[in-house]
Amino acid sequence: MFVTALRRPPRRSSRVLAMGETHRARRRRLAALVAERDAAALLVTRLVNVRYLTGLDSSRAALLVPADGPAVLATDGRYAGMAAQVCPELPVVVDRQVAEALVKRAAEDGLGRVGFEAHDVTVEHHTALLDAAEVELAPLGRLVEELRMVKDEEEIGLLREACAVTDRAFEAVLPEIRAGVTERAVAIALERAMVDEGAEGPAFESIIASGPNGAVPHHHPGGRELQRGDLVTMDFGALYGGYHADMTRTVAIGEPAAWQRDLYDLVHRAQAAALAAALPGAETKDVDAAARDVIADAGHGEAFSHGLGHGVGLEIHEAPLMGYDKTGKLMDRVPITAEPGVYLTDRGGVRIEDTLVVRAGGPELLTTTTKDLLVL
Amino acid sequence: MFVTALRRPPRRSSRVLAMGETHRARRRRLAALVAERDAAALLVTRLVNVRYLTGLDSSRAALLVPADGPAVLATDGRYAGMAAQVCPELPVVVDRQVAEALVKRAAEDGLGRVGFEAHDVTVEHHTALLDAAEVELAPLGRLVEELRMVKDEEEIGLLREACAVTDRAFEAVLPEIRAGVTERAVAIALERAMVDEGAEGPAFESIIASGPNGAVPHHHPGGRELQRGDLVTMDFGALYGGYHADMTRTVAIGEPAAWQRDLYDLVHRAQAAALAAALPGAETKDVDAAARDVIADAGHGEAFSHGLGHGVGLEIHEAPLMGYDKTGKLMDRVPITAEPGVYLTDRGGVRIEDTLVVRAGGPELLTTTTKDLLVL
Repeated sequence: MFVTALRRPPRRSSRVLAMGETHRARRRRLAALVAERDAAALLVTRLVNVRYLTGLDSSRAALLVPADGPAVLATDGRYAGMAAQVCPELPVVVDRQVAEALVKRAAEDGLGRVGFEAHDVTVEHHTALLDAAEVELAPLGRLVEELRMVKDEEEIGLLREACAVTDRAFEAVLPEIRAGVTERAVAIALERAMVDEGAEGPAFESIIASGPNGAVPHHHPGGRELQRGDLVTMDFGALYGGYHADMTRTVAIGEPAAWQRDLYDLVHRAQAAALAAALPGAETKDVDAAARDVIADAGHGEAFSHGLGHGVGLEIHEAPLMGYDKTGKLMDRVPITAEPGVYLTDRGGVRIEDTLVVRAGGPELLTTTTKDLLVL
Repeated sequence: MFVTALRRPPRRSSRVLAMGETHRARRRRLAALVAERDAAALLVTRLVNVRYLTGLDSSRAALLVPADGPAVLATDGRYAGMAAQVCPELPVVVDRQVAEALVKRAAEDGLGRVGFEAHDVTVEHHTALLDAAEVELAPLGRLVEELRMVKDEEEIGLLREACAVTDRAFEAVLPEIRAGVTERAVAIALERAMVDEGAEGPAFESIIASGPNGAVPHHHPGGRELQRGDLVTMDFGALYGGYHADMTRTVAIGEPAAWQRDLYDLVHRAQAAALAAALPGAETKDVDAAARDVIADAGHGEAFSHGLGHGVGLEIHEAPLMGYDKTGKLMDRVPITAEPGVYLTDRGGVRIEDTLVVRAGGPELLTTTTKDLLVL
């Protein structure tokens, strides 16, 4: 694969929607935060943040959002046409040095203190930016990531479809999940089914963990063949319109033993407790505790060795992170995962996960595949 | 997929070799460069560079390489056991804040000027490092990337196997490449075949571009069905032992038209010219020109819209970049790609690419699939 395409056409997503007003509203909210921090503008360099604020999905772009006045986009020649189509209201500077071009623009416009994303810009790049123009660059924290935590309904719509694709792919692949099939074959079948159902691709590397491998939370699917008597944990999701679905189901191959059914029921109850607690205003650590307490009461507290879940959106892992050691409150319209698990070394494990949206009236489940134990 | 695993086991590669002496030699070469730059040590934070210098493939690790004295590795608890196995000769600091732990260590050891990778460390992280300990941090450039350009024979061996897997996968999938099959299905078949042949996965997102889509160098494989009369460009490669193969072949579905055969022959001759020019001491832009001149002489200069190729190794795109606007010389044992292409809008395109190693006696081709035009 070559690297230096001079006129590489953009990878066009069929999901690029004309959401001009939505993106304008996001930029207005950001401009208000920039003004609060006493900065004249924010230089946005994280590509996922540029996408959030403009709709442009580019491998080279940056955005200057003044506290007061219109934003300016920079991208290179490959994406200029797409930018004109996706965000026609924005002036576009066409330059390969996107961030440098925008700090020059800021200096020309007499902007004084310009915020930048210190968690994204490397020290080398920072030096180059200061060399490019006479501006003061001030780290302002993760302003765009903070905005991104609460989703607008357009985003929830895309995430809902990503989850629907995930549900349909699971249903399509169910007949192939049986003794004798390798973990890797299940992973490939799921990923293929997600694409067939409309995904741009998998949202992350699928986890298929069978039998004793189920004791490894992040098991990488390998050549082990599913066997009668296995529990099989499948953690996967579809990418749709840039949004990441995330679902885990654990199934039994053949009639499960009593301990397996008990373990499944325990995790199922723990997950239900987390869903019931996931309300606006709840502390994330309390939602984690709702599930963790159920598991700890059954004597398996040590075996639930990770946090309850995380935000999802344009990234598979976003704010808020939900664990016993995390702080923060849930809010209306924050999509999260709830994914308790119990992992028993050399025996196996169970994890059950949904993607849901926190709502005032109780969570809206986006993944809707049954959580009854499927015996295949 | 959860994010905060407390005891997530490492993803184990079956290709982790006990290459202690090789890694020690790499660290010795780096230490000499560090001494030349008047630094007491280099703090290596780029994970791919840590892997190169230690063999440890971790998602959280850093390495302190003094100009004089033994190196110190830092990683978190998930990888401590793997580190002991892969690089038992290295002292390991187990800490989640890997870089912070190593600058503290440097300060305790009385190291004065410590180099760091300014192209990797963000401004936010740099501030945290300076807060963690009293050290002077100095940007030293891309020292490890410079070392990585010339490969040792262990690396070339892994790359050779990655390319052999790629060749075998292509051969295995050939019978499935026919009219009526979608681009996406070809991509999935190739990726599955690579895994079946021993790959850890694809080295990058495969490009399958059929008929008029062949005019788009980076075409994303879609739902278009191959048709009689198409040229089909397939750009793909296997990941093996951390090393990235990269190969492109263009085939014809049914008997090609005269213009298609002419175009193929042109690109084939251009690629052969590049291979002949790829000798130690050659300027990279001259190797690019060897291919570009052939295509320009046939009147298609504008239609070869990217550089000739790039280095490959632990990353799919490494130094040296090879294009008409790039400077630098080839050296013995530098693996590169040679991938000229011609793209005719609305008609189609041809690209032919090999991965090869620059050798004194002429290039060693690592991808060996035939470059005769295959008519399927």
